[in-house]
Amino acid sequence: MKILVTGFDPFDHATVNPAWEAVRRLPATVKTATIVTQEIPTVFGQSAEVLHAAIVRERPDVVLSIGQAGGRAALTPERVAINLDDARIADNAGQRPQDQSIQPTGAPAYFTQLPVKAMVAAIQQAGLPAQLSTTAGTFVCNHLMYQAQYLRATEFPDLRAGFLHIPFLPEQVIHRPGTPSLALADAVRGITAALEAIITD
Amino acid sequence: MKILVTGFDPFDHATVNPAWEAVRRLPATVKTATIVTQEIPTVFGQSAEVLHAAIVRERPDVVLSIGQAGGRAALTPERVAINLDDARIADNAGQRPQDQSIQPTGAPAYFTQLPVKAMVAAIQQAGLPAQLSTTAGTFVCNHLMYQAQYLRATEFPDLRAGFLHIPFLPEQVIHRPGTPSLALADAVRGITAALEAIITD
Amino acid sequence: MKILVTGFDPFDHATVNPAWEAVRRLPATVKTATIVTQEIPTVFGQSAEVLHAAIVRERPDVVLSIGQAGGRAALTPERVAINLDDARIADNAGQRPQDQSIQPTGAPAYFTQLPVKAMVAAIQQAGLPAQLSTTAGTFVCNHLMYQAQYLRATEFPDLRAGFLHIPFLPEQVIHRPGTPSLALADAVRGITAALEAIITD
Amino acid sequence: MKILVTGFDPFDHATVNPAWEAVRRLPATVKTATIVTQEIPTVFGQSAEVLHAAIVRERPDVVLSIGQAGGRAALTPERVAINLDDARIADNAGQRPQDQSIQPTGAPAYFTQLPVKAMVAAIQQAGLPAQLSTTAGTFVCNHLMYQAQYLRATEFPDLRAGFLHIPFLPEQVIHRPGTPSLALADAVRGITAALEAIITD
Repeated sequence: MKILVTGFDPFDHATVNPAWEAVRRLPATVKTATIVTQEIPTVFGQSAEVLHAAIVRERPDVVLSIGQAGGRAALTPERVAINLDDARIADNAGQRPQDQSIQPTGAPAYFTQLPVKAMVAAIQQAGLPAQLSTTAGTFVCNHLMYQAQYLRATEFPDLRAGFLHIPFLPEQVIHRPGTPSLALADAVRGITAALEAIITD
Repeated sequence: MKILVTGFDPFDHATVNPAWEAVRRLPATVKTATIVTQEIPTVFGQSAEVLHAAIVRERPDVVLSIGQAGGRAALTPERVAINLDDARIADNAGQRPQDQSIQPTGAPAYFTQLPVKAMVAAIQQAGLPAQLSTTAGTFVCNHLMYQAQYLRATEFPDLRAGFLHIPFLPEQVIHRPGTPSLALADAVRGITAALEAIITD
Repeated sequence: MKILVTGFDPFDHATVNPAWEAVRRLPATVKTATIVTQEIPTVFGQSAEVLHAAIVRERPDVVLSIGQAGGRAALTPERVAINLDDARIADNAGQRPQDQSIQPTGAPAYFTQLPVKAMVAAIQQAGLPAQLSTTAGTFVCNHLMYQAQYLRATEFPDLRAGFLHIPFLPEQVIHRPGTPSLALADAVRGITAALEAIITD
Repeated sequence: MKILVTGFDPFDHATVNPAWEAVRRLPATVKTATIVTQEIPTVFGQSAEVLHAAIVRERPDVVLSIGQAGGRAALTPERVAINLDDARIADNAGQRPQDQSIQPTGAPAYFTQLPVKAMVAAIQQAGLPAQLSTTAGTFVCNHLMYQAQYLRATEFPDLRAGFLHIPFLPEQVIHRPGTPSLALADAVRGITAALEAIITD
């Protein structure tokens, strides 16, 4: 099995994104699976193009995308992506789409093919907090999760895909009192546990 | 310089207390200071006796006590201890004092001698969240912080003493959705940074 | 214009549900619209039957369903309902469906026809906190919101429908430290403001 | 019995302070007690002068001071005031004292004479959230609570005094997502319930 794990680059004036920081530290092999990784620009549209190119290049069985969910205390596998771009802040190309469909001919939403409950259990088993989530928001995280499913629906029918949100790093909450964070090493461990659940699914 | 660092044992049905887990992993030397450690029972009264014996045995220049503050997102140096025991839950000896003075002849409160703002800055410099706190509660944490000051006032006038609260460990928040946590390694790093600020004070 | 506003009954051992408490206090007329109300049982399946009967009886132009979102600090119009029942707790009939489709032949999700951003603005204009939400959860709230849309898709094509979550009442958070609440009178005011936004849409 | 209830004016760029808004709406009589009120400037030093003048003028048996605690979800009677001014933001006179004693010859802290647990119980009995607090911070709220106690210690030995923090108003949290609030009418009700507990103490 080959799994493509993606992670976003920093956005909204941040200098670091825990998603890519964690993804690029993943081992090359988890159980019997080969892990390949791809940094994704936090840009509507272009993020999906980079994902598409990586899928064409790597031909993975599974895509697991990682994104930062500032304010969440746990690793949160996403159940569903919705056909909606609605940005409160600008993406890294300065775009701020409002109330737009991602794919005019796409489904209103796509559920993930990944075993989200087993992923939650595996992360918890590794001693880390995990919760199911039913919203990936309406910014580039949801956009990419949706686009991965749309690619599956239109071009790669055997692909399984999904999304995992992770908290801020401790260094990111120094000036955000009361905001939870997660150590980078624990983000790596949690993603690895989620991958193991996917592999043994 | 010799610093005695104390950490509480597990309480309230927990199997682990991040305070002692972090304290027992501290290095034997930080900068020019010797670090000695002591586990403290989470028991009103007895906690102070164990602290007293450790001070007599070790003759430290500084006492830094570490306790768990479940729900906090940051490492929080305490500024002040108040002369009040008031327990919502039982301590490890089954005691639940209500509205009692800790020391009938003690001051209403004691401020710490430790450089709390420098400690906050040092922890933040280490990439970890830190905030000043003005309450150590009314359970055994405040009790021990108060008793250390009372020992200073009555028996060890050269002693400097203080308290640092740390968050839950990630494993403790698995069934506490939304609750912040801090990795054990980061608790150790944060305490070490606080110790460095104390040493260079 | 005629608007049917629904509110759930108490569930999960509660003796009150702010949803129905607020709904039954709504005025009979808001601007030019007639307001009719319906209490809904917090039961998978049966909730939709009661809604269907009320729609047949009242023939409303709009359905706005109100539900309690314990822990939220603001009134939150929902953008989307997903085709998923997954209950962590039992409904009022003891049912706890796990990972089930609500309608096997339904869409994966339905977006609301209501002007959610105008509703948020109107509630804020009334001096109350409001936020957009992209998840109604996977319990009976999402179920009812989905079923209203499914009825629209299959039986009442001219119907516009949507959902508004409201916080706990103050009396419900007495033993939930740190949990936000909203006064009943403010819930009524907030729902009324949302209705005004719908009417002038 | 005569009770002087004080409330602060708006500070930190706010246009309203729920403390004074609630205090000025209190009834003139609660049970057998006469209620007199005083607006207090959010200014170190001057706040105590205004309080002193009001005590001299009114000769109350009890002083209950009300302040805003932004971010808290409950009404919180304060147990203790500490001898420390340390301001993160400027007061209404532009002062930002750092690590200063309020009264060089004052006690390190003063406990309130008010029945804080009965006040919590009375507020809860009124259907509103209440919690004990052991910190009034280090801004003007703690300053005034401390100064009231210092006046008692030095000039008005029969006075009983204390402090009650209340949450933001709903209108104040419109642009503070996730932050709890309390309706003004409920703040008035909660303060009244606290006064009843003080009167029957």
